[in-house]
Amino acid sequence: MNISSRIKSVPASTIMELLTYSAEAKKKGKKVYHLNIGQPDIITPKSFFEAISSNKEDVLEYALSEGLDELREAIKRYYNEYNIDFEKEDILILNGGSEALFFCMIALCNEGDNILIPEPFYSNYNSFANSVGVEIKPITTLAENGFHLPKKEEIVEKIDSKTRAILFSNPGNPTGVVYSKEEIKMISDIAKEHDLWIIADEVYREFVYDGEYTSLGSVKEVEDRVIIVDSVSKRYSACGARIGSLASKNKEFMAQILKLCQARLSVPTLEQIGAVELYKTDKSYLQDVNKEYKERRDVLYNELVKVPGVICKKPTGAFYIVAKLPVKSADDFVKWLLKDFDIDGETVMPCPAEGFYATEGLGKDEIRLAYILNKEDLAKASKILKEGLEAYLELDK
Amino acid sequence: MNISSRIKSVPASTIMELLTYSAEAKKKGKKVYHLNIGQPDIITPKSFFEAISSNKEDVLEYALSEGLDELREAIKRYYNEYNIDFEKEDILILNGGSEALFFCMIALCNEGDNILIPEPFYSNYNSFANSVGVEIKPITTLAENGFHLPKKEEIVEKIDSKTRAILFSNPGNPTGVVYSKEEIKMISDIAKEHDLWIIADEVYREFVYDGEYTSLGSVKEVEDRVIIVDSVSKRYSACGARIGSLASKNKEFMAQILKLCQARLSVPTLEQIGAVELYKTDKSYLQDVNKEYKERRDVLYNELVKVPGVICKKPTGAFYIVAKLPVKSADDFVKWLLKDFDIDGETVMPCPAEGFYATEGLGKDEIRLAYILNKEDLAKASKILKEGLEAYLELDK
Repeated sequence: MNISSRIKSVPASTIMELLTYSAEAKKKGKKVYHLNIGQPDIITPKSFFEAISSNKEDVLEYALSEGLDELREAIKRYYNEYNIDFEKEDILILNGGSEALFFCMIALCNEGDNILIPEPFYSNYNSFANSVGVEIKPITTLAENGFHLPKKEEIVEKIDSKTRAILFSNPGNPTGVVYSKEEIKMISDIAKEHDLWIIADEVYREFVYDGEYTSLGSVKEVEDRVIIVDSVSKRYSACGARIGSLASKNKEFMAQILKLCQARLSVPTLEQIGAVELYKTDKSYLQDVNKEYKERRDVLYNELVKVPGVICKKPTGAFYIVAKLPVKSADDFVKWLLKDFDIDGETVMPCPAEGFYATEGLGKDEIRLAYILNKEDLAKASKILKEGLEAYLELDK
Repeated sequence: MNISSRIKSVPASTIMELLTYSAEAKKKGKKVYHLNIGQPDIITPKSFFEAISSNKEDVLEYALSEGLDELREAIKRYYNEYNIDFEKEDILILNGGSEALFFCMIALCNEGDNILIPEPFYSNYNSFANSVGVEIKPITTLAENGFHLPKKEEIVEKIDSKTRAILFSNPGNPTGVVYSKEEIKMISDIAKEHDLWIIADEVYREFVYDGEYTSLGSVKEVEDRVIIVDSVSKRYSACGARIGSLASKNKEFMAQILKLCQARLSVPTLEQIGAVELYKTDKSYLQDVNKEYKERRDVLYNELVKVPGVICKKPTGAFYIVAKLPVKSADDFVKWLLKDFDIDGETVMPCPAEGFYATEGLGKDEIRLAYILNKEDLAKASKILKEGLEAYLELDK
C-alpha cells in the first residue's frame, strides 16, 4: 500500500515519548508542573459561551466560506484600532491560524519552492511545509542574541530563484522575541528587493511586555505583499474555538485563498458567532492578561538565570522562554526531571527545543518554557526547575 | 508577486455568476426556489445545542488532535450497529468530510500521482486534488444508465503506474446513485488486483430509499485498504458544525494522518461535544428524515420526467437528482429561468451540472437538483421547473 513520501516527511510529534515519562511519573504519585505546552489557563471571556448559547436557529447551516460578515467586521475594527487599515474584504476567516498557514503555503509555493523562516520556529510550520512539498530555509538566530535577526546579508544569501516568502511569528513562538522597528524594516526591504511575500504570524501580538510593537500590517510600502495570520486562540484564551484569520490587501492572493475556503465550505458557524463577541471584549481584559503574563515571565526568568551557565536574554513577548542550558542533551535532562528528580514529590516538565530547529544539530541543549501557570504554581515550578538543573549539573561533574 | 500554479488550477466556484442572476431576480420581486445547493432545511437535533450550552468549562482548551474520546466512541458505536467493526482507534475526527478528503489526498499521493473518480462527482474533489497536485482520472458514468459504474475493463484501463486510489461518494453526490453489492465487489476486486486504496465518501449513507446499501466498511477482503470519509453535516442536518471523520483499519495510514491532525492541533471542542449527542440521537430521527426525503424525491422526480426528452433514472439515494435535458446549454437555461421566466412571480434555480465533470464537454446539457425544500414548496418548485422547461423548449423550436 503506497503512502506518499510527502506525508512521510512530516515530522511526528516529538513530545509523545516525553509524555509517557510524565504519565509514568504521575502514576508514581509525583506532581508534574507542565511548562511544555502553550495551552493558557486564563479564563475565556464568558461572552463567547453566552453568544453561542443564545443561538436561536433550528438548523445549523453552513456559514459563508469567507466567514461571517459580523466576524470579519469585528476583526477589521480590531485592526483599525491599531491603525492597521484593513477592510472587511481584506479578511478571511480560517480554521485557526493553522489552516491559514497551510493555505498560504499552497497558494504561494509550488512543490520544490522554498520559504525563509528564522529558527527556532513553531514546529508545525515544518509539518505544513513538508506535507505540500515546500522547503524551509532556516535563518538561524541565537540565544546569545535574544533570538533577534542576523544581519541583512546573512538573510539575503539564503534567497534563491525558488524562494517565495519570508515567514515568522512576531512575537515569536518559541522564543518570545519581539522584532524591533528596524528589524521589521529590514524584512520589508528584503521582501521588496527580492519580490517575496511576507507571512507575518501575529497571533501573539497582544503579548508584548516591554517597549513598542511593530505590526507588518502597518508598513505601507509592502502592503501588497504582506499576509497577516491571526487567531483568537491565545488572545482570548479560546484555543479550542479554532477561529483564525488571514488578512491581506493583495486582491489576487485573497481571491486564490477564497477558492480553497469555498472548497472546504466553511468554518464552524457557532464558533464564529462566539468569536464576534470575543473581539468586542473590553480592552481591559487584554490589559489584565498582558500584566499577568508579564509578571509570570519575570517570576520564571529571574529564577532561571540564577543558574550559572544558562544563556537567556529576557524575552519581551508571547508567553515562552527559550534557554540554552549547560547540558549536553536537553532531552535527557527533561527525562531525568520526570524520572529521577522531585522536591517534596513535585517536578517540572520543560519542552526540549531541538524540534524547533530545521538545521540538524541545533537546539539540543535548549528548552522552551511556557509560562501558562498561575503565579503561585509558576513560582514553585521555577524553583523546582532551577534546583533540578543545579542538581543535574552537579551529577555531571 | 508569485502565485503558485497549483492554486491557480483550483477551479473557481461556478455558481457565483448564477447567484448574481438570482440576486437580480429577487431584487425585482421574484421569488426564487433554490434547488441548487445541498443545504438541508431539516431541524438539527436539539441535543446538539443543549450539550454545547451546558458546557461548564471556563477555559476553552484545545481538544485532542485525534478528536474527543467520547466522539470517537460514539462513531464507533454508530458503525458497529451496522456491523462495521471499527474500533475507536480506527477513527479520527476531522474538520468536516472536506478536511478528511484533503488529508487523504496528501497522504496517499505525491504530486503527479492520480486517483480514479466516477464522474460526475462532487466538484470540490477537484479543488482538493488540484491544490496538492493530484490528477483526477474520471470514469464517465451516464444519465441513461442511472450513473451506475461501467464495466470493469473500462475502469481498469484508466489505471497506470501513478494511480493510487479509487474515490467515490456512495450514495452519490451529485447523482443520487447507490452502488449495488456487485458494483462494490467490482471496486474491491479492482483495488486488490491493482493495489489501490479505496476512499469511500459515505456521508449520505443514511439517505438510501430503495433497496439495500453496501458500505465499503463491511467488505472484509479489502479492510486494510479502505478509508471511510464521513460527516454529521447531512446525517443530522448539522452542516455548520464542520464535524467529519476518517475511519480505516490500516494502522500505517492512520498514523500518517494523525501527524497532519497534530499539525493543525485540533477540531473545535464545543462542536465535538455537540456531535457526541448527535450520534446518540434516536434512530427514529434518521428514519423520519429518510421518509421525508424519499417523498420529496418522488415529488420532484415524477414532475421532472413528465417533460419529453428528459433523461433521468430515478435515483435511489442522497438528496440529489441529475437530469439530462433536451437543451444545448443548461447554463443558459438556468439563466433564462432566473431572468426571463416566472409563474405568478415565482421561479426556480437548478445547478448546471457541467462543473461536476472532469471530462471537457460533458454535462453541458445536465442539471443537478437538490430536494432540500419542504414538500409544499418543492411541489411548487417542481411544477415551475417542468413548465419552465416546456416553455424554454417551445422557444427553441
